[in-house]
Amino acid sequence: MGRMAIIGGTGPEGLGLGLRFALSGADVRLGSREVARARAAAEQANARLAAIGCERRIAGDDNRSAIDGADMVVLAIPYAAVAELLPQLAARLEGKLLLDVVNPVELVNGVFRMASVAAGSAAEEIQAALPRAQVVSAFKGESAEHLKQIEKPLGGDVLVCSDHADARARVIDAVGRIANVRPIDAGALVNARALEAITSLLLNLNRRYRAITAIQIRGLRA
Amino acid sequence: MGRMAIIGGTGPEGLGLGLRFALSGADVRLGSREVARARAAAEQANARLAAIGCERRIAGDDNRSAIDGADMVVLAIPYAAVAELLPQLAARLEGKLLLDVVNPVELVNGVFRMASVAAGSAAEEIQAALPRAQVVSAFKGESAEHLKQIEKPLGGDVLVCSDHADARARVIDAVGRIANVRPIDAGALVNARALEAITSLLLNLNRRYRAITAIQIRGLRA
Repeated sequence: MGRMAIIGGTGPEGLGLGLRFALSGADVRLGSREVARARAAAEQANARLAAIGCERRIAGDDNRSAIDGADMVVLAIPYAAVAELLPQLAARLEGKLLLDVVNPVELVNGVFRMASVAAGSAAEEIQAALPRAQVVSAFKGESAEHLKQIEKPLGGDVLVCSDHADARARVIDAVGRIANVRPIDAGALVNARALEAITSLLLNLNRRYRAITAIQIRGLRA
Repeated sequence: MGRMAIIGGTGPEGLGLGLRFALSGADVRLGSREVARARAAAEQANARLAAIGCERRIAGDDNRSAIDGADMVVLAIPYAAVAELLPQLAARLEGKLLLDVVNPVELVNGVFRMASVAAGSAAEEIQAALPRAQVVSAFKGESAEHLKQIEKPLGGDVLVCSDHADARARVIDAVGRIANVRPIDAGALVNARALEAITSLLLNLNRRYRAITAIQIRGLRA
């Protein structure tokens, strides 16, 4: 699987994905704007891996250095930060596989909803902003809390979509190495509209039922 | 459960829902703009019910008469027909529970996607157009083909959302009478954005995998 950089690697989603990918055998670089924060997060993450008998596969770095030399770059930042951060990293992301897990969620009158995005989805907006990157979207609806609880198997389906078939196949392969999840090839990137909308639905269900929900697709052959 | 009217009852989705609701014990009025078509469809539907040993609970009528006297009205028309048809029926729908199963789907370059809807979802658009109706959305991602195959159990989760809690509870009760499906209270009507986006995702999965897919929510207590 090689090396995986996580932009926004000290946030809950980035950290959770970093832990899961490290457990699956990847070398993970948590990226942050502040290298000291990234290193502290990596140290804590490695301690958690060691506590369950796993290899310390996580390092911390600044976002730019983390990207260099990475085979796959995970974009795990809040949607609100995309417009500012992407232009700063655009040159470094040229030609890279960018795994987008960004969710345009807003909370209005106590109800989560997908924020209005002119491009249709954050995924399509990011791909348009980085025409030379290969954007692949996945893990959109995955609970950060659940990702971080590495003692518990993940479970459920991870839908993967992209307009770049090779990149999509590489992510499907990487997801398939994570224990107990089923990657599903969800085709073109426009399907991220559904994946992002599902996130708000799951957040509302989580609140209503005090649960950690996930989706699963019925009717596919095993 | 009383009487259920289905606007667009001769289309595949309306007919499929009519069959499932009839099997669950409801009296169903299939509505159409042409009463003769509605009656022919009802006759065929009753024959299918009789063939599996069930009561003939389906009648045909014009849309307007079907609505009068119905305890619940299902709106099962193509999204493209909403803007024209709703104003014609608005007065009759005042005070009614309107079960919206409309999907704003478009096919672009061989890929299904949720069409752009200014209100955010067809559900919200319909509720805004009919402020005195109680709009409840459900069955958005349910395959019409699957609904019509009454020999096969439906299976999966039916997510139900509405800004009218009593109406939502009535639909949850009605869904719960259909064999082998689990109704899920999905809260406010804005969640229909996810339900409608999921439809396009499932249509793309159906095509890619030659399957009939449905979603299921993991993590809820039984």
